[in-house]
Amino acid sequence: MGLTDAYNLHDTICAISTPAGTGGIAVLRVSGTDAERCVATCWKGADIAAMASHTAHLGQVLAADGSLIDEVVLTLFRAPHSFTGETVVELSCHGSVWVQQQLMARLVECGCRVALGGEFTRRAFANGRLDLSQAEAVADLIASTNAATHRLALSQMRGNFSSQLAQLRDQLLHLTVLMELELDFADHEELEFADRSELEQLSQTIADHIAHLADSFHTGKALKRGVPVAIVGKTNVGKSTLLNRLLHEERAIVSSVHGTTRDVIEDTISIRGIDFRFIDTAGLRATSDEIEQIGIERTRKKTEEASIVLWLQAPLPPKDGVLYGDDNLEIDIDFAGKKLIKIINKTDLYPETKPAPDTLGVSARDGRGMDDLEQALIEAADIPEIKENDVIVTSARHYEALTRAQESLHRVLEGLRSNTPTDLLAEDLKQALAALAEITGGAISSQETLTTIFSRFCIGK
Amino acid sequence: MGLTDAYNLHDTICAISTPAGTGGIAVLRVSGTDAERCVATCWKGADIAAMASHTAHLGQVLAADGSLIDEVVLTLFRAPHSFTGETVVELSCHGSVWVQQQLMARLVECGCRVALGGEFTRRAFANGRLDLSQAEAVADLIASTNAATHRLALSQMRGNFSSQLAQLRDQLLHLTVLMELELDFADHEELEFADRSELEQLSQTIADHIAHLADSFHTGKALKRGVPVAIVGKTNVGKSTLLNRLLHEERAIVSSVHGTTRDVIEDTISIRGIDFRFIDTAGLRATSDEIEQIGIERTRKKTEEASIVLWLQAPLPPKDGVLYGDDNLEIDIDFAGKKLIKIINKTDLYPETKPAPDTLGVSARDGRGMDDLEQALIEAADIPEIKENDVIVTSARHYEALTRAQESLHRVLEGLRSNTPTDLLAEDLKQALAALAEITGGAISSQETLTTIFSRFCIGK
Repeated sequence: MGLTDAYNLHDTICAISTPAGTGGIAVLRVSGTDAERCVATCWKGADIAAMASHTAHLGQVLAADGSLIDEVVLTLFRAPHSFTGETVVELSCHGSVWVQQQLMARLVECGCRVALGGEFTRRAFANGRLDLSQAEAVADLIASTNAATHRLALSQMRGNFSSQLAQLRDQLLHLTVLMELELDFADHEELEFADRSELEQLSQTIADHIAHLADSFHTGKALKRGVPVAIVGKTNVGKSTLLNRLLHEERAIVSSVHGTTRDVIEDTISIRGIDFRFIDTAGLRATSDEIEQIGIERTRKKTEEASIVLWLQAPLPPKDGVLYGDDNLEIDIDFAGKKLIKIINKTDLYPETKPAPDTLGVSARDGRGMDDLEQALIEAADIPEIKENDVIVTSARHYEALTRAQESLHRVLEGLRSNTPTDLLAEDLKQALAALAEITGGAISSQETLTTIFSRFCIGK
Repeated sequence: MGLTDAYNLHDTICAISTPAGTGGIAVLRVSGTDAERCVATCWKGADIAAMASHTAHLGQVLAADGSLIDEVVLTLFRAPHSFTGETVVELSCHGSVWVQQQLMARLVECGCRVALGGEFTRRAFANGRLDLSQAEAVADLIASTNAATHRLALSQMRGNFSSQLAQLRDQLLHLTVLMELELDFADHEELEFADRSELEQLSQTIADHIAHLADSFHTGKALKRGVPVAIVGKTNVGKSTLLNRLLHEERAIVSSVHGTTRDVIEDTISIRGIDFRFIDTAGLRATSDEIEQIGIERTRKKTEEASIVLWLQAPLPPKDGVLYGDDNLEIDIDFAGKKLIKIINKTDLYPETKPAPDTLGVSARDGRGMDDLEQALIEAADIPEIKENDVIVTSARHYEALTRAQESLHRVLEGLRSNTPTDLLAEDLKQALAALAEITGGAISSQETLTTIFSRFCIGK
């Protein structure tokens, strides 16, 4: 018995599809070839077999002994015109947890199996209602917590990414045909086919398109997981206080003893619709304390992951009304490739001063300067405004497949430039096609991969 | 602006009707004369005005700028064939909290008002779809947590209580007519109307029926709130340990210092489908400690509320293999009218003994004897099995109205027996009718009363 059996497509499945808990109403969903017969077994009301699809009917669900479990509204979506592509029966019941449980138990008595997480969507995929990237977008949509991730999920669910992939596939197939033709008729010198430069140009167009998609993962990842921000600085400059101020809550332990923050703490906040994932780090100073040394190593590592670094500095005595920060970190950290924001903390101690050029002055303790810091973070994040139908890659799985397709295409381009015979390039083209097909699920045969993908879905979807 | 305005019946209202949180899907409900027009403002799909009632349609909800908020299934229930009796539009959307909030905000933009708790049911009542006792049963049904309360709520929601009340009203009206006839023709000695004994008999039948309903509140209250059980006993006999054992968790503080449980702690457990509300009490002993004295007073008071008393006793040295309990309470407590279960604790110390007659032996520490105790509790609770369509009064409001009707009927009966002229009894009959009408809402004019009743409903129902 493997995972395949657990996801048996022949079973009629049922689940509570609405959020867990008590509400005015709840909706149970039944899907499968036997959905009508299963529900009819416990249904008292209009004849289900005689119902038109997409109609709603008030009736009763009865227990095995004929007693009433609940009055419900039954809505029938007959195959193939349903979310799953199978016949779906939805029962809208009173939203008591007890009633929901009784109805589930009754449906199981009538021959349904309790659905696994994401199993309805998995059937929609199996029945060709959605491709795999669209199915994944359903889970993203349900998990979306802001306008940007919601828009991207909707766009992907509605097939905008899929149609770009389809276009790439068509171009790759066209390229394959052109190469085969060139090969077949290479010795007929009187015939003119696509020449090498033409093949190269088409390959470049495809490669550029794939690169554009793969590059968008930088934005997609930032939107979905939050823009990673590291706060670095010497011990006791107020990093934890700044993080608390940003989080508007007591998240990290704050004390005035040097080197208290040895564990890397992460938390995410939303600033004007963009999520920032803050990494609080151990204070930096030359130390012989082994545990603290480990913390500093982790800070280095975490800083590498960050795309924005807040370098927090203690104020030096002001000169001529200008406040300078202590920019001696004592330890080497590489900020290459990061957006660096230099911040001088504790400006409340020097109210009559201005921060030095290229630095921001804040007081983590009383909150002054925080608006400027938030603005600086938004600018550093550099997230484009997401418009409807925009295609941005948000899945590491997709990014990885695009990267492989990109590598194959680069081998093709190199081959064309170095006059490698086209028959030697066919395999690379095939690999590029296969990599793209993985995204939409056309090339996935492993049930385990599917199970991994669908396991992050909630029950009832 | 009073409560009446908050519940304006002319507004079109909207709410998330499914439980709060993230799920596969969520359902938003719109109800009101303007429901179709409000939803049409943000709907892209089939023409709502042209839809047949009770049909479901896949479409889109658009933001004011025309961008997509979500793909939804819209189901139309056109007035008067809906839960509220008004036109109801249900939108089944993706179950992200963010999507749900966006859709709510959009519906408000389109002219809906966010519904107050219970407002859909209140409209069903206002539109004559449900009487007040049925409306209250909807909230009971949603709150039901076991078979018994669920059955009673269903029975009441489906009008079984209402039809008994209607029958009583008809009989009272018949009685009124008979009395008026007697009065009008009293001097026509040649005419024979209902004689006094006939009137008395009918009055008695009605009074008995009302008494039967009122008496059922004892069971109804026990089922809905739990059967109140007090555990009393001297200090250090193991009352808290017994309660913990019953609750299968550490709820009360247990220690071996005398008099630790000064606060009365309540907790409810379900034994074979019946809820028992356990009252742990302060240990009883003559004491000069003022705080403990207050605890003992509260124990006395709590014991009065209980219908079952578990009197826990410490074991005395066994005689001839029989274990007796120490039944000296040191303090007078009145057990009159209570089901008293005498329990000897700590039987694990005397494994070879039997408890004295009329006592149960248990060991709260190791659990022996607990099955017998649970059986004794079930028997003492004496809850009849609840069958479908059973009518049992579960609401204090209904009980209070029935009690008033009963009192009026008793005055009528007394009057008939003492040959009071029937015109003097008419007012009592009127009062009985009015009291019964309050239950179904026919005689309620106060918006405040309605607001109190509906305020315990959840939003979206």
